[in-house]
This record gives sequence, C-alpha cells and structure tokens, in this order.
Amino acid sequence: MTETEIVIGIDIGGTTTSLGCVDIQGRLHAEATMATRGDQPAAQLVSRLHQAIEQLKEELPTGTELAGIGIGAPNANYLRGTVEHPVNLNWDESTNLVELVQSHYQLPVTITNDANAAALGEMVFGGARGMKDFIVITLGTGLGSGVVSNGGLVCGADGFAGELGHTIVDPDGRQCACGQHGCLETYVSATGLCRTVAVLLGELLDPSCLRTISFQELTSKMVYEAACQQDTIALTAFDRTARTLAMKLADAVAHTAPEAIFFCGGLATAEEFLIPATQRYLEKFLFPIYRGKVSLLPSSLPGSASAILGAAALIWHKLKGK
Amino acid sequence: MTETEIVIGIDIGGTTTSLGCVDIQGRLHAEATMATRGDQPAAQLVSRLHQAIEQLKEELPTGTELAGIGIGAPNANYLRGTVEHPVNLNWDESTNLVELVQSHYQLPVTITNDANAAALGEMVFGGARGMKDFIVITLGTGLGSGVVSNGGLVCGADGFAGELGHTIVDPDGRQCACGQHGCLETYVSATGLCRTVAVLLGELLDPSCLRTISFQELTSKMVYEAACQQDTIALTAFDRTARTLAMKLADAVAHTAPEAIFFCGGLATAEEFLIPATQRYLEKFLFPIYRGKVSLLPSSLPGSASAILGAAALIWHKLKGK
Repeated sequence: MTETEIVIGIDIGGTTTSLGCVDIQGRLHAEATMATRGDQPAAQLVSRLHQAIEQLKEELPTGTELAGIGIGAPNANYLRGTVEHPVNLNWDESTNLVELVQSHYQLPVTITNDANAAALGEMVFGGARGMKDFIVITLGTGLGSGVVSNGGLVCGADGFAGELGHTIVDPDGRQCACGQHGCLETYVSATGLCRTVAVLLGELLDPSCLRTISFQELTSKMVYEAACQQDTIALTAFDRTARTLAMKLADAVAHTAPEAIFFCGGLATAEEFLIPATQRYLEKFLFPIYRGKVSLLPSSLPGSASAILGAAALIWHKLKGK
Repeated sequence: MTETEIVIGIDIGGTTTSLGCVDIQGRLHAEATMATRGDQPAAQLVSRLHQAIEQLKEELPTGTELAGIGIGAPNANYLRGTVEHPVNLNWDESTNLVELVQSHYQLPVTITNDANAAALGEMVFGGARGMKDFIVITLGTGLGSGVVSNGGLVCGADGFAGELGHTIVDPDGRQCACGQHGCLETYVSATGLCRTVAVLLGELLDPSCLRTISFQELTSKMVYEAACQQDTIALTAFDRTARTLAMKLADAVAHTAPEAIFFCGGLATAEEFLIPATQRYLEKFLFPIYRGKVSLLPSSLPGSASAILGAAALIWHKLKGK
C-alpha cells in the first residue's frame, strides 16, 4: 500500500450523479457532479463517468494510485453487481453496472444501494462510528434508507433490504413511480413535499407565494425558501411531511430499534423545518418502550458528499477491511 | 455433560403460560399449561411455575438433570433479564423475572421476548434451519414478532427490537392497550379478529351465527368455526385481517427482506383462512423487487409447543452454543 492510494466514490441519484476521489481517512480530494440523464441508457452514463474520472485524476498529485471504485445507485444489488428495476431511471430491467465500469477500468468495483452506501459512510467515516444499530435516511428525489443492525448492513435474503421509501403510508394514497400507491417517498422526499404543497393549495385558503408557481416549476428549494418567510402553506407542508415521516420511522424503530436515525440528501438541508418536528411526532407515535431512546440527527458527513463518502467507504471496506 | 440433561422452556402469554422439558435435540418430554392471570403480581406466577416445574420433573426418568431455564415473555429484555411495561400483564413497570426464577432455582436462566424465542426455536429446531433472514409472527392474544437478519436475532440498541404488533396501521384507528391508536395487533390477533367481527356486524347486513353472541363472549375460535361454515361475516373478517397483515408484512419485507415469514400461535391454527389470502395480498402490496421472493409458512414446530421450544432453544444456545 502506498500513501497516495485513493478510490473513486460514485453516487448515482435520480437527477444528479456525484463522484469524488476519497482517501482511506475519508478525505475528499476532488469531486464532480453531472446530470444523471435517467432517460438515456446506463452505458452512456458510464461513458460520461469515465470521462469525469479521467478529469478528476488530473487534479490529483502525480503518483496517486486509483485502487478501486465504489458505487451507490438506486436498486443496486451488492451480491450481483446489478441495478435492477430502477424506479427513476429508464434503464433495462437489470443492468450489470460493475461489468460496464470494468470495461473502462480493470479495478475492483463494488456497488450497493445509494442509501446503504450512505449508511456505510456514516459508519466508517461519520457520526455512527461506534454504533451497532442505526438507520440512515436519504431525502432526495426519492427516499432511500440503509439499515445497520448488530454492526452489519441489513441486506436481506436477496440483497435488497432497506427500502423504507416504499413502505406504505396509505394503500389508497398517492401514485408512486414504482407502480404502488401511498409509498412513503410519495409524501416524504423533495417531490413528495411539492405534491403536499399542491394538495394544501387546494385544501387551504391561506395566501401563499407558492400560489403563483406551476406544479411543474415548483421545487423543494422554493418550498424551503417560502417556509423561511413563514409562508403558512410551506410550513404546513413541512409539518405534514414530518408527521408522515415520524409515523413510518416509528414502524422502523419497531423493526430494528436503532439508537439513532441520520438524515442526509438534498431535502435534509431543510433540517430546521423537518428534524425537530419529526422528533416531536416520533415520540408521540413510538411504542412506549422505545420513547426517549432514538435520536434523529443530521448526517455528520459534509453535505452532498455523504453519498460519495459512502460509496468510497464501501470499496475501502472491501479493499482493506476498514 | 450427561445424556439425560434437559432444560425448561417457558412461554408466558397474555392469557396462557406454557412450559415443558426439552432435550438438546428439541424433543419435548413433558409439558404443562396454566392461566397466566396477568392481573396478579409476577411473583405469584413464578411461584405457580415453580410448582409446575416440580411436577414436570416427577414425570422424567430418574437421573435427568435440569440444566437451565429459558423464558419467552412479552416485553422481555434479554440484556437486563427484565419484563418491562408489559401491555397485557398488570405487573410493575420493570420486573426482574430472571432473579425471581433464580430465587427458586440456582441455575442459568435466560429471558427474551416470547416471539424472539419462537424465532430462535424456528432457527435451531424448525423450518428456518439454514435460513439467514426470516421473520416469525406469533398470533395469539396479541401479535408478536422475532426478526432474524444475517443469521442473528435482531435485538436493537436496547434489546427491544421486533415489535411488529405495534407498527401503525392507522394513527386514528383502534385503541390499543399500549396507549397508542391503530397498532397492527388491534387488527391482526385473536382479539383483533373479534374486534373486526364487531365492526362488520355493524357494517354489513349479512345474516351470521355470530349475531347472537355478545362481544365479551366472542372468541377467535368461534369466528374460525363460523368461517368453516362459510359464514360471510367470519370469512370477511379473516379476509380483512389477511389484507391488513399483508400490508404491514410488505413494510417488514422493505426493512429486512426475509426469505420466509413463519406463523405460529393460537390464531395461526386458522391458517387456511389466513395464510393463502395474506400471501395473495402481500404480492399486491410488495415493492416490485421483492415480489415472488417471500414465502409465508406455518411454523414447522409442533403447534402450541413452538414457543416452549423457542424458550428452550434460547437457553440451550446459551449453555451449549447450539
């Protein structure tokens, strides 16, 4: 092992893909982002990733060695190296992303669910160091989750455990891109928040700066900014989001009894409108024996880099057993 | 180690307590049942258990050695040896049951959640041998669950994981003895089934033999017998029970992705009215990547003995690492 080994961590999201060079201490040396362009085939994304990695390598000191590539992606299967039935990506039913990447790089490549990668990052580099039971929730276009129980990532019999975004809030509820109705992520995610705003604009009479924006133009950032200005619709949307999230997190606690639940991803940056309210509702919904025992925490990993660090933690874990 | 060692497995339920002598091969040599009498203090139950154990010992061949006692009980904490805030028992907030039993027997005594014990029994002696990811659901007065992930019992940070009976079906739903509303076990359990019958008697106009029975007199056995006679109210009650169970099992699969879910306990004996319908609804509610991958199975352990065998598996596991 040289002192200048790095790995590439890649986070493939529904909208944006991020990548970066990470050393074994979890330091991020160079990073880049690109549009995922989920309407295009996976091979085109891999080809663009190849170009981006080559550019990142130029930013690194001479002699730095690329040791491996870790990838977090929606519906990724660690056991098979595949992405299967991704909800927000118009890819084939099953894409062997590890093989696609290895056609460019003859290196160890490992893939997992983007949220499982975030959990591994939190465990290896972040606020969950020393914890044996915790959950990481990623709040972006969708809602992802990684569950760690008894010190290990919960993968399940088929490698696909930890899809809390598709637990059911209401079986007759909102249409989900997965084909079901009422999945948690249709309520609690950047898009879920916007859908809640739309419902509230119809339900309530309060004046709101959000009344002049079309549904298509509306973003979670606009809702956040309106909430900062005490807009009633925006504040109510965050409150409902927190309540729904808390209800399903109470279920999650009843499954694996974590000591903490971490939040990361785009929407989690609106933490002042989400985390305290969610904690309050959670205590109300929790089965009494769990009350006062579960902390809701923002990810301690730096902002949008948590998923990159998670993907890097995954491959470092494989390479060095770290 | 002698060839004639046995352990006592004890299952403390909301209504009935069962106990038996179990050898290391999982053979049940003598058993007994008694009313739990949850309105009385724990020490009285332990005193009656002591008498029952002494009687059971007389049934065993001379020279048989009692090696330890394993207990499954509601809200039992493996780490602390306590039963805490039991919903269906009028005990203190925290009762150290291990100490109470050890005041009668100077032997290793271990306690866990009754449903976790059933899961351990299924893993050590039953149909889950060789499985690394599965769930056991106990359907009795309440609904208990034991979750096994990656080959280990999921205990969580505080030893209380796996309380699927208190996941939330509807936050504005039925009152639960735990103080919450809409917990799964208020719909799916022997008492939940009777509550559903009461609701259906009000909702529907179909004639039913259950219309002549008071709510207080109604038992799940009566509902089962009515269903066997094609009583519409009873059949509809089982169908609603199966649908609600399936909805929350779909959530459970999204957490830990088990390869099988086993059912045991009193209500599970009505399996022909529950399991096929639950499997059908489950496939409908499952996030697509999980479909066709999860088997619902009756416990392969003999009937009501599964909880006794589970409690015995718990203490054998401690004594022999089996």
